[in-house]
Amino acid sequence: MSEREEHSKGGVYSVKGQEFSRDSRYIETRIVAEPRDGTDDYPVVPNRYRLIAAYACPWANRAIIVRELLGLEDVISMGNPGPTHDADSWTFDLDPGGVDPVLGIGKLKEAYEKRFPGYPRGITVPAMVDETTGEVVTNNFPQITEDLYFEWQQYHKEGAPNLWPGELREEMEEVMQRVYTEVNNGVYRCGFAGSQEAYDAAYDRLWTAMDWLEERLATRRYLMGDQITEADVRLFTTLVRFDAVYHGHFKTNRNKLTEMPNLWGYARDLYQTPGFGNNVKFDQIKDHYYIVHTDLNPLGIVPKGPDLSGWDTPHGRG
Amino acid sequence: MSEREEHSKGGVYSVKGQEFSRDSRYIETRIVAEPRDGTDDYPVVPNRYRLIAAYACPWANRAIIVRELLGLEDVISMGNPGPTHDADSWTFDLDPGGVDPVLGIGKLKEAYEKRFPGYPRGITVPAMVDETTGEVVTNNFPQITEDLYFEWQQYHKEGAPNLWPGELREEMEEVMQRVYTEVNNGVYRCGFAGSQEAYDAAYDRLWTAMDWLEERLATRRYLMGDQITEADVRLFTTLVRFDAVYHGHFKTNRNKLTEMPNLWGYARDLYQTPGFGNNVKFDQIKDHYYIVHTDLNPLGIVPKGPDLSGWDTPHGRG
Repeated sequence: MSEREEHSKGGVYSVKGQEFSRDSRYIETRIVAEPRDGTDDYPVVPNRYRLIAAYACPWANRAIIVRELLGLEDVISMGNPGPTHDADSWTFDLDPGGVDPVLGIGKLKEAYEKRFPGYPRGITVPAMVDETTGEVVTNNFPQITEDLYFEWQQYHKEGAPNLWPGELREEMEEVMQRVYTEVNNGVYRCGFAGSQEAYDAAYDRLWTAMDWLEERLATRRYLMGDQITEADVRLFTTLVRFDAVYHGHFKTNRNKLTEMPNLWGYARDLYQTPGFGNNVKFDQIKDHYYIVHTDLNPLGIVPKGPDLSGWDTPHGRG
Repeated sequence: MSEREEHSKGGVYSVKGQEFSRDSRYIETRIVAEPRDGTDDYPVVPNRYRLIAAYACPWANRAIIVRELLGLEDVISMGNPGPTHDADSWTFDLDPGGVDPVLGIGKLKEAYEKRFPGYPRGITVPAMVDETTGEVVTNNFPQITEDLYFEWQQYHKEGAPNLWPGELREEMEEVMQRVYTEVNNGVYRCGFAGSQEAYDAAYDRLWTAMDWLEERLATRRYLMGDQITEADVRLFTTLVRFDAVYHGHFKTNRNKLTEMPNLWGYARDLYQTPGFGNNVKFDQIKDHYYIVHTDLNPLGIVPKGPDLSGWDTPHGRG
């Protein structure tokens, strides 16, 4: 996701006097194993789609992780926009010549415009793009990871984890919903608050949820029990950014993650699991937030801290 | 001290592309027990001078603490400007009617102008003001606390600490100089850096000094040994602001103070000593930095964190 969607101008993310409100309208097209009549479904076909995902972005980071957990790297290719962008949103500035080597475009916007000329909403990641046409298929991030699991099962690697256990589904949806509104989006609500009152309320909501999670993880290795699920992926991408950016830049600073013993152990446990930590690029994460949000950090200076060496220390939750 | 002195416009403290450089020219008049011929010395007289000191300001906080440690409250009165101000610098906005009850002025600037019409430099705290004329005497902060010790000895309380032990003087000056340039001023060098390069260099300098202090305090209860000295007062007022403002606002975020075991124990030891913690007002400290520095924090939102409850926990250094 790019925060640009939430606002009209690049670099301006908070609106003075107002609470932050996320525009959550996405392209709802799906890629499914059996396309349904009367829909714009695309069919699951190996080597036809390209996942466009910036390592900097927590919403895109989810799809990067799930793709690897399920072993889909050989059937779904990946392009990675760089961490910073202007009002035109994500670009392939890290690629040779500034062009994605498969899609042949410099700006992700071109794939959106190709399918929807004059596309009016945010140019966001993650996005699935049809390599045969160069058109964006979907940017509906929670549906993308769900479909990677259920619709691409034929192509999962042997021993891929069951990220959506049927017997836990109902509770999982409740947990994921609360994590989404209170934590994933909650940190943005703190950072983009346009008034002291909006910030104060956002901070209290966030920490109420963080305390709930700290308690929940006292008796469970993972959010839903003893196995990694989609709910863990969704919480992880926020936690791994917490001390590096949200604590200072978004003022979510009651405590560092490192001061929450269960959350910190849990986050390290995931970080040290293949598919998670190896897909975290702290430098890109810091550059993204501190450089792109010029209304919060006008000089664009990126902190050298925090000390991140703790991520590799024993987590004690085995 | 007001940071205004360092810059030409209220609210603007960093200069794009430049390192931060402090204007350290102060009014060098002194208040002494025996005025020297050919100088503009003022004589020590009880109940003639008023210490103007904002609790928000680390430089002023030193004088507040030393005045109490030495028991000078009954012979030197005190006025306290509020935490925020505009380009005209400190005001008595917390006092009834917005006027200092002894000096009868609303802005500290008036006391400066009364002695030096058109005074061209920063209107800073701490300042000593002559109550008989309403004129500022001095704002030379390191000299103020030194003179409170040596020149006002006749009025110290019984059992006042020896803040300047003669046998330690030489080493103390070296320690205080390094603490001043690298830590007291070092945090400002990080926060007001006008380029990434200037910030990166400032951060490295600061943390080199913090590591030196962490090591020094491993074998000494206080900076100079087993007794509190002026050197401790000077370090304390920066440490007590570290997590509350410098860590996030000035991006000094390699670690929180609470993550440096010796420095954190040492800072709590002082905080729990009468004269130190009771003269720390965290709300004023946070309001000052986050509201006054509009170039760093344009929306003026003040963080609710950090959790400060640790300051009262056992320090284990007795």
